[in-house]
Amino acid sequence: MSDSNPIRVLIWHEYRHEKVNPAVAAIYPDGMHNAIARYLATDASLVVETATLDEPGHGLSPERLANTDLLIWWGHMAHGEVADPVVDLVAGEVHRGMGAVFLHSAHFSKPFKKLMGTGCDLKWREADDREILWVTRPGHPLVDGIDDHIVLPAEEMYGEFFDIPEPEQTVMISSFSGGEVFRSLMTWTRGAGRVVYFRPGHETYPSYHHEGVLRVIRNACHWAALRGRVIQRFGRHDMGWVNGA
Amino acid sequence: MSDSNPIRVLIWHEYRHEKVNPAVAAIYPDGMHNAIARYLATDASLVVETATLDEPGHGLSPERLANTDLLIWWGHMAHGEVADPVVDLVAGEVHRGMGAVFLHSAHFSKPFKKLMGTGCDLKWREADDREILWVTRPGHPLVDGIDDHIVLPAEEMYGEFFDIPEPEQTVMISSFSGGEVFRSLMTWTRGAGRVVYFRPGHETYPSYHHEGVLRVIRNACHWAALRGRVIQRFGRHDMGWVNGA
Amino acid sequence: MSDSNPIRVLIWHEYRHEKVNPAVAAIYPDGMHNAIARYLATDASLVVETATLDEPGHGLSPERLANTDLLIWWGHMAHGEVADPVVDLVAGEVHRGMGAVFLHSAHFSKPFKKLMGTGCDLKWREADDREILWVTRPGHPLVDGIDDHIVLPAEEMYGEFFDIPEPEQTVMISSFSGGEVFRSLMTWTRGAGRVVYFRPGHETYPSYHHEGVLRVIRNACHWAALRGRVIQRFGRHDMGWVNGA
Amino acid sequence: MSDSNPIRVLIWHEYRHEKVNPAVAAIYPDGMHNAIARYLATDASLVVETATLDEPGHGLSPERLANTDLLIWWGHMAHGEVADPVVDLVAGEVHRGMGAVFLHSAHFSKPFKKLMGTGCDLKWREADDREILWVTRPGHPLVDGIDDHIVLPAEEMYGEFFDIPEPEQTVMISSFSGGEVFRSLMTWTRGAGRVVYFRPGHETYPSYHHEGVLRVIRNACHWAALRGRVIQRFGRHDMGWVNGA
Repeated sequence: MSDSNPIRVLIWHEYRHEKVNPAVAAIYPDGMHNAIARYLATDASLVVETATLDEPGHGLSPERLANTDLLIWWGHMAHGEVADPVVDLVAGEVHRGMGAVFLHSAHFSKPFKKLMGTGCDLKWREADDREILWVTRPGHPLVDGIDDHIVLPAEEMYGEFFDIPEPEQTVMISSFSGGEVFRSLMTWTRGAGRVVYFRPGHETYPSYHHEGVLRVIRNACHWAALRGRVIQRFGRHDMGWVNGA
Repeated sequence: MSDSNPIRVLIWHEYRHEKVNPAVAAIYPDGMHNAIARYLATDASLVVETATLDEPGHGLSPERLANTDLLIWWGHMAHGEVADPVVDLVAGEVHRGMGAVFLHSAHFSKPFKKLMGTGCDLKWREADDREILWVTRPGHPLVDGIDDHIVLPAEEMYGEFFDIPEPEQTVMISSFSGGEVFRSLMTWTRGAGRVVYFRPGHETYPSYHHEGVLRVIRNACHWAALRGRVIQRFGRHDMGWVNGA
Repeated sequence: MSDSNPIRVLIWHEYRHEKVNPAVAAIYPDGMHNAIARYLATDASLVVETATLDEPGHGLSPERLANTDLLIWWGHMAHGEVADPVVDLVAGEVHRGMGAVFLHSAHFSKPFKKLMGTGCDLKWREADDREILWVTRPGHPLVDGIDDHIVLPAEEMYGEFFDIPEPEQTVMISSFSGGEVFRSLMTWTRGAGRVVYFRPGHETYPSYHHEGVLRVIRNACHWAALRGRVIQRFGRHDMGWVNGA
Repeated sequence: MSDSNPIRVLIWHEYRHEKVNPAVAAIYPDGMHNAIARYLATDASLVVETATLDEPGHGLSPERLANTDLLIWWGHMAHGEVADPVVDLVAGEVHRGMGAVFLHSAHFSKPFKKLMGTGCDLKWREADDREILWVTRPGHPLVDGIDDHIVLPAEEMYGEFFDIPEPEQTVMISSFSGGEVFRSLMTWTRGAGRVVYFRPGHETYPSYHHEGVLRVIRNACHWAALRGRVIQRFGRHDMGWVNGA
């Protein structure tokens, strides 16, 4: 209810495809992260920064993460290059309350796999499938402003079985031209932190220029962020505490 | 673990379409319930009976339900004719442990709506859609013997939003030719009873002659049944009980 | 994100105990509903009204409910007097998005039972048990401002098994002097509406004067309310819709 | 439904306390694992083996785990000595369908933490608390043969917040003399594998000689085991597959 402080959003992007693939660079000249950041910056209640893999420490110092309310993550070709201590740092901040939104191929990122505890594998196909994302939780803040579906004319296909734990909330489910389905917007809780997965965003398609996709990401910033961190009390708890309380 | 007793299955069927629509009667000459019953009867661990709407008391006396481990329900055109006391009886037995499997248009049956607490509405279309049901919980007993999907060449379409409570387990999700998706095999718990919804089975298609569909129904008989009933202890609980225990 | 409009809270109270039991009237001279309303009125983002059983139509006209974002419900000795059409009205508004918070003995109210689909029974004892409510979801908005527990020096005991569907989120669990436990703050979704159950509040104890209890109720007004209603699209959905879209 | 094959249970035990603490050795002369194994061996549908930390490879070769349907895990003072490759092996087998039951202090074991994705911390106290475990899911196979509660006269206290993901099913909740509560019997799914956590079993108390505790462990062997493994189909999925199917 202390809604007066802005939400501190940090968009982390691998930022490699744009540098090596002209087709991707044509869609996102200064990177996907900046496409998303420009949209989010139009929301006065968000303060948006970016970080990328090739910055020192991947741009994710302990101090910077400690001052992040909501982390967005996109990675694909270089998951393995993310240093394990940074992965532990991210997971630890989520446990203390930082929200985290994992986009598209981040299903295979180290932090997402660590938070899920599963293999996170899936079926896939790059064949310009039409994707239709259907709302399965009308009224959920993640789909605020979205009608009952979103159509993306061409996207990479992701298909079930998606090896994730049963979501706490399944908010959108996609169909693809080839007949596959995929849970495409879901939530989990890990410690005090809320975790969101959102499917669209293969690098060769302009999904992060799509108003509906961007709106869901913006909604996720509001829904999954927690201002500050939660102190969790663990350890020895002596008998008689309640009388002394 | 008292697996030696057979599971007492009761298939309840509205049994009206077959009597008025020759196209349905051609597919199910003696009714859907008997098509399902014949398949289940090949499983020696099941004892299968049937009941229909037009029998006295809809064939569902208190004694008969009290001796049922697993109830299967199909209804469509005559939901409103099911007497409310019978609905209460069914819900009460579920609360005490009877398993219940609701098929296809039973999404709008009185017992299912009473157990869900939601409107249970959905989108639909009768246009020979191809339905593909995808497994989203490999290893779940409900999909024992099923590969990662089932294809039904033609079925009625059901589309999200399906107005049900977030399932405890979402085991299959369907796509349709028109691009819709639908959660098509799910579970909930109500009291001591397990509730399953399984989507296929529009009366004008031979889905209950399909090996995969029948296998899921058989699996559901095993998974959702509870032998006997559970005594739940409610009411006044005096201080000092633990010392006297 | 349209947080600028206030949340329209309606507190519904049976309001009978206070009229017949001087011990209750001594704690809540103008009724529990007004004790809660006075606290909530200190939150400028809430607009608070009350309604009671003995008003015409129980004070719950279709128009009034249609203009309610969040309904709080307390009932005990007169559950049976609540008219069924009003119960259907409440459940329908929840399905369309109205939040609902059920307090204490409202576990047995008609609207709660209808929304749950279970028997909603429990164990109980009136013996001045000390209740300790423990947070099991730190960081959840429902426990914003609450440390890791709340102690109530004397309350009615409620004990498991509480016959409710597995909650979507279990946020607090209570222990009692007699050794019983009870899930005491939980959430479910029904249609587009969020449902909260919160345990404390037996009429002979001053729990609705306790800062922690009141804070949770205030948190619930923020968390479970949905501004306006959600249009859910059901019914016939013709083939080819996506090309025309 | 292929219930004819016995369930292959492997009990993994750290087996250190018994060797250094005479009080523990007095309760479990040949180790906790053998106390549990002797009880389980009375169930003809189980084939029970044991493995311990100090055996080569901790007694957990890939071949042995591949032929295990259900793994039980107890560890405490030497969590850190479990080799990471063995942890990865255990988690991988769970993902493919092996059931896993984590007992008491195994809440902090490497495999449990890896499967949960959370910190798994809690409050604790060694002060001979009386523990009462209450059933919150009557009818669940995990509590088959258990009345509505179990009383353990003296146990270590574990208190909330227990930093685990929201369980798929919360089957028992404990209270302790000091007023704390703890979710004490829960389930999750990871890949095709079912994971169970069960709280009792501090090494200085005879909990694994208690009939009710042993019965829950036996129930868990039946409920969480999956005969064999599940083949999960991941990777590239070409357009047109459905026509060729």
